[in-house]
Amino acid sequence: MKRIAILGSTGSIGTQALEVIKANPDSFELEVITAHSNADLLIAQALAFKPNVVVIAREDLYEQVRDALQHEDIKVYAGANALNSVVEMSTVDMVLTAMVGYAGLQPTIRAIQAGKQIALANKETLVVAGQLITELAREKGVNIYPVDSEHSAIFQCLAGEFHNPIEKIILTASGGPFRGRKAEELRLVTKAQALKHPNWDMGAKITIDSASLMNKGLEVIEAKWLFGLRNDQIEVVVHPQSIIHSLVQFEDGSIKAQLGLPDMKLPIQYALGYPQRLKSDFPRFNFLDYPQLTFEQPDLKTFRNLQLAYNAMEQGGNMPCILNAANEVAVSAFLRDEVGFLEMSDIIESCMAKVMYIANPSYNDYVDTDREARLRALELVK
Amino acid sequence: MKRIAILGSTGSIGTQALEVIKANPDSFELEVITAHSNADLLIAQALAFKPNVVVIAREDLYEQVRDALQHEDIKVYAGANALNSVVEMSTVDMVLTAMVGYAGLQPTIRAIQAGKQIALANKETLVVAGQLITELAREKGVNIYPVDSEHSAIFQCLAGEFHNPIEKIILTASGGPFRGRKAEELRLVTKAQALKHPNWDMGAKITIDSASLMNKGLEVIEAKWLFGLRNDQIEVVVHPQSIIHSLVQFEDGSIKAQLGLPDMKLPIQYALGYPQRLKSDFPRFNFLDYPQLTFEQPDLKTFRNLQLAYNAMEQGGNMPCILNAANEVAVSAFLRDEVGFLEMSDIIESCMAKVMYIANPSYNDYVDTDREARLRALELVK
Repeated sequence: MKRIAILGSTGSIGTQALEVIKANPDSFELEVITAHSNADLLIAQALAFKPNVVVIAREDLYEQVRDALQHEDIKVYAGANALNSVVEMSTVDMVLTAMVGYAGLQPTIRAIQAGKQIALANKETLVVAGQLITELAREKGVNIYPVDSEHSAIFQCLAGEFHNPIEKIILTASGGPFRGRKAEELRLVTKAQALKHPNWDMGAKITIDSASLMNKGLEVIEAKWLFGLRNDQIEVVVHPQSIIHSLVQFEDGSIKAQLGLPDMKLPIQYALGYPQRLKSDFPRFNFLDYPQLTFEQPDLKTFRNLQLAYNAMEQGGNMPCILNAANEVAVSAFLRDEVGFLEMSDIIESCMAKVMYIANPSYNDYVDTDREARLRALELVK
Repeated sequence: MKRIAILGSTGSIGTQALEVIKANPDSFELEVITAHSNADLLIAQALAFKPNVVVIAREDLYEQVRDALQHEDIKVYAGANALNSVVEMSTVDMVLTAMVGYAGLQPTIRAIQAGKQIALANKETLVVAGQLITELAREKGVNIYPVDSEHSAIFQCLAGEFHNPIEKIILTASGGPFRGRKAEELRLVTKAQALKHPNWDMGAKITIDSASLMNKGLEVIEAKWLFGLRNDQIEVVVHPQSIIHSLVQFEDGSIKAQLGLPDMKLPIQYALGYPQRLKSDFPRFNFLDYPQLTFEQPDLKTFRNLQLAYNAMEQGGNMPCILNAANEVAVSAFLRDEVGFLEMSDIIESCMAKVMYIANPSYNDYVDTDREARLRALELVK
């Protein structure tokens, strides 16, 4: 029985993780759920799942949550400090970090410091501070189980192969809703168009990142740290059907891949249940429904964000942190109709050129870099 | 350092295995090579590789081999008994069974009885006597490492997953040179046409079996025994590019696949080197050369041999042994232009209907069944 804390239980990953836990009551016990501001759903989840602890990050919503749960045997806390404390509870075995963006960094660090196993759905954590996080995890003997479908695919392919060096990995990308379009066509695309992902049903931020290929760029950097790879060992191939979730090539030339229908519940369940594959009733893939799987090179000229992410990885230091902060601001602005689709890349590129570069950042350097990059990006939005 | 005996060193698998051994002198030592009748190549291999023992199965060729190697420190033996004895030598760690057809059965049994690890390239061994072989291997604590590319793919996908039950496996089939043709078109195809495999360069017998889909049928039965599967857990999908070599689906719905260019050296090396993946310079797969991978259902009406193999597996007992013996005779006759392509299925079907069925055959029953089925098939050829 694994006792689970879910950071971000009201988001797309969080709600699907609760379905997985509900379907496997003999394997998992829900200990903690947390949310940023969706108090109504958090209350409903608490009433349905009866965790021991509930945290609402926004302190102004504390009383609402406390009052709704006053007749339950559930502790209710509020604020960022509470978030950082609950991951250290002795009754928690594994922390699923399913928060969006940079906000996942601090609680993930605290959970690793407390020796908790991590199911990582917050890719920004490794993008921003991959070196710091992976060194800390190694020091504490903590395993980080990826939840992103691509990294889960690679992790699944590495089962039984950890003694065999990786030659390279190939991350697959759907190409998003604008695959095949050129820059002129992208200038005027709307939020509604960008939010229509062809294969995956995800939160708004990651869906925009998928449309701009920034999501794949962040995944490239995430993969570097998760699997200890050199920059030149990480390739991206566009695979519009999203059936092959990613591939690993070993030094004998053999390639292993993980496949399936696009369904986040599978990688969530794999990360929570590892090394056991729990029997599921998820819909099964059938080749007769997919008689053709196709592959093409990503268009780095049109989808500049992927190239910018590669550049940030090459430069290292705090550059991926700058990339990520500028991107978070740009995506928010795009979702508020304040900037156009292509302007997001302009904002990121400008921040990467202007925010101070630090080759060997400390944790505090990351905090400062994130703040500075956000301020600059916000100015550019205006 | 693994000390290897290769049974059938002059065939397609045997010669490629020697290339693998030559390329990895720190991992492998060649102890024994054997051949049926290709004395010239056997002598050349012995002079190049200096094994300790050489066996020529055909006794009339003994003197030729002995005389050619008289100045070398190499023991030369001849005949079937010698073949059965050398696999028991204490200086052998692993036996690669790369002989063609039923002839591989007896030396494989002897090698397992002697506790040798088996790299199995002779699928007929498991087709004919899968239950007997796998029970014996379990009893002796012997691992059987598959060399067939499809079974190697599945075995590679099972690394690190042996605690997770298999839901099903999917064997891929190229479809052979006659994919898409109907029965009328196959009536008059020639030996030369059938020997032109689109993707794989293999021996004559297996190439004809590939054209008739009997090869896939034999692989279905082989997979049943290698991986301990029920009949309804083994599917076949036609995949003309032969890039995905086969797939495994687990109980959580996740599918793992092994991919690569069609090159038998990889599965040979994996079986010999397991669990190590030895660095190789085999040509690498690239998605840009294969922008489309396609999949279709096998045509069991036109390619009756695959259906006959499924039937033989369902019926069990000595039925796969009958199927295999009749097929070996039919393929030989086709290669001598004595029967047509479609008549091969008629011969096999007739033998399956007429040769005595035994539900729980002993080793001697297999020997008798094989003899009887061959006699009947030979009569049908005439």
